[in-house]
Amino acid sequence: MAVPPQARTVSDVGEAGTIAAIRAAAPSALNGDDAAVLAAAAPNARQVCTTDILVEGQHFSLDWSTPGEVGTKAVTQNFADIQAMGARPTAVLMSLAVPGETPVDVVRGIARGIGTAASPWAAELVGGDVVRSTQLIISLTALGVLAGPDPALTIDGAAPGHTVIASGPLGHSAAGLALLRHFGRRDRVPDDEILQRLVQWHCAPTLTVGRGSVARATGASSMTDNSDGLIRDVTTLAERSGVIIDLDSAAIEPDADLRHAAEVLDVDPWTWVLGGGEDHTLIGTTAFQPSAGYRTIGRALRVPDTDPNVDDGVEQHVLVDGAVPAVTTGWSSL
Amino acid sequence: MAVPPQARTVSDVGEAGTIAAIRAAAPSALNGDDAAVLAAAAPNARQVCTTDILVEGQHFSLDWSTPGEVGTKAVTQNFADIQAMGARPTAVLMSLAVPGETPVDVVRGIARGIGTAASPWAAELVGGDVVRSTQLIISLTALGVLAGPDPALTIDGAAPGHTVIASGPLGHSAAGLALLRHFGRRDRVPDDEILQRLVQWHCAPTLTVGRGSVARATGASSMTDNSDGLIRDVTTLAERSGVIIDLDSAAIEPDADLRHAAEVLDVDPWTWVLGGGEDHTLIGTTAFQPSAGYRTIGRALRVPDTDPNVDDGVEQHVLVDGAVPAVTTGWSSL
Repeated sequence: MAVPPQARTVSDVGEAGTIAAIRAAAPSALNGDDAAVLAAAAPNARQVCTTDILVEGQHFSLDWSTPGEVGTKAVTQNFADIQAMGARPTAVLMSLAVPGETPVDVVRGIARGIGTAASPWAAELVGGDVVRSTQLIISLTALGVLAGPDPALTIDGAAPGHTVIASGPLGHSAAGLALLRHFGRRDRVPDDEILQRLVQWHCAPTLTVGRGSVARATGASSMTDNSDGLIRDVTTLAERSGVIIDLDSAAIEPDADLRHAAEVLDVDPWTWVLGGGEDHTLIGTTAFQPSAGYRTIGRALRVPDTDPNVDDGVEQHVLVDGAVPAVTTGWSSL
Repeated sequence: MAVPPQARTVSDVGEAGTIAAIRAAAPSALNGDDAAVLAAAAPNARQVCTTDILVEGQHFSLDWSTPGEVGTKAVTQNFADIQAMGARPTAVLMSLAVPGETPVDVVRGIARGIGTAASPWAAELVGGDVVRSTQLIISLTALGVLAGPDPALTIDGAAPGHTVIASGPLGHSAAGLALLRHFGRRDRVPDDEILQRLVQWHCAPTLTVGRGSVARATGASSMTDNSDGLIRDVTTLAERSGVIIDLDSAAIEPDADLRHAAEVLDVDPWTWVLGGGEDHTLIGTTAFQPSAGYRTIGRALRVPDTDPNVDDGVEQHVLVDGAVPAVTTGWSSL
């Protein structure tokens, strides 16, 4: 009996067959030459670029996620970085390192997930590379366009008095991961709408189209995304901006979904909120009212005068209700 | 006794320490935010992007190459793709997957190699990501700018009657690899200027600055680079352009360096010329005289009329002196 096409591995179909499967799953007329050419969106439009790498067993598991969800997660992770600059994602490049025994269907699913997740942004998978390796590794590069003459939305623009704003959930990805770890298999997570939603968010978080562009257009002063953990990422923003950020516990407290999951697992949901990353929620500051889709979660304060010989003398750049938070660690890739 | 700083591993110094080492080794003011912002070089300047992934043991070996040479090779590989479009490289993003026991010096050396190789092009390492893995994997993305309104130099523009041109060596990287494999260790390769030069070219091939931009400016009709093997890459160009390409054996015959190495190893140097890749020599076509730095290596011919039901009916798109070449295979990544 012939091997069904979906059971073939990348070794079976080779480089050309694997690339053909990717291009069919995420088609783009821009793909297929030595490099892709991107049209300039407007005179003086600046390009924005970022890259992120996902390793199986570390950033995702195919035991828990479908290949399509992995593709979605990779796009969200990269597009959140583009949006955190206030730019519009336009293109994706994928470098894939795969063990030879990987089914082509896995590669096809990842590419389809990338194409589907990029599509609402009018962005396309425009190129890539595929090589053999011992671990499945996906390196995605996203490009974007920063329209008009205004500066990009950087991580260092927060000033004392600015409101801290956020758009998206906090701690949901960490809760989903905790559920997967607790129950060991995705199909063993109870058939409960809330728990399923959290698991789904961990496997394939999404990003509201244009949310970062809106923040830039309405005068936000700084922005980043929650990738390594709330306290950790806000600390980077506070340090780079030279401010203290005081978060309001009432504005970030665990929502009903997190409280429900925490009850099931008998843990403190604050750990997820403060230390959990990978929600890719946009977090920034503004001197104005939060724009549509953003809520206020704290404010930026002046760094107190200290001994100028000891850096800025501040041990803790992020507080919750004026005090050092219970969790200050986050996700680290090394 | 304290561990000397150069003996520390990426596990020792963690994500922040590793990133700091990279940024110090290849500094750029554009690095350090969620994404890098690239200035538009000119009104309507289009962006060009490409990515390539290198796996240790497959595309390079730290037993044979210094980390700096690996960085150089990665840049050459990517910039050749940018130049093959007739564009000028402007920026590099590096995603690095490293085993925890990798010395930080290795990462620093790779970053320094990238920065040094990008520097003559006025291009910078503007961002990246570092994660842990079981294999050392470098995924580089290069961005470039295509100035002015003219079309990019694509792979599908060759037409019957055009001259086939090349700029750079053919088979030197394959000869260098054969020498390394034969002698087992780099320091066992005889201290012979020619052999050392071939080994050096395999470990760290370079690219003449601006050679691809010149070809586009002087009316070349198509271009690619020799990454997977001469016959294989020229076949892709010929197929995409819908032509037959006939190479002139006198113009591509093994040069004195290859003949010397072939004598030492007692092999046929034509295998390196026809099947060896990774020279990243620019190969294209033109309806005009070859521009400075290019030599003529063949010509494009019309595809003979054939049965329209059998694709274009052509089995072999690349000939040497009108005949099927002795080697038609090349490097494949899977």
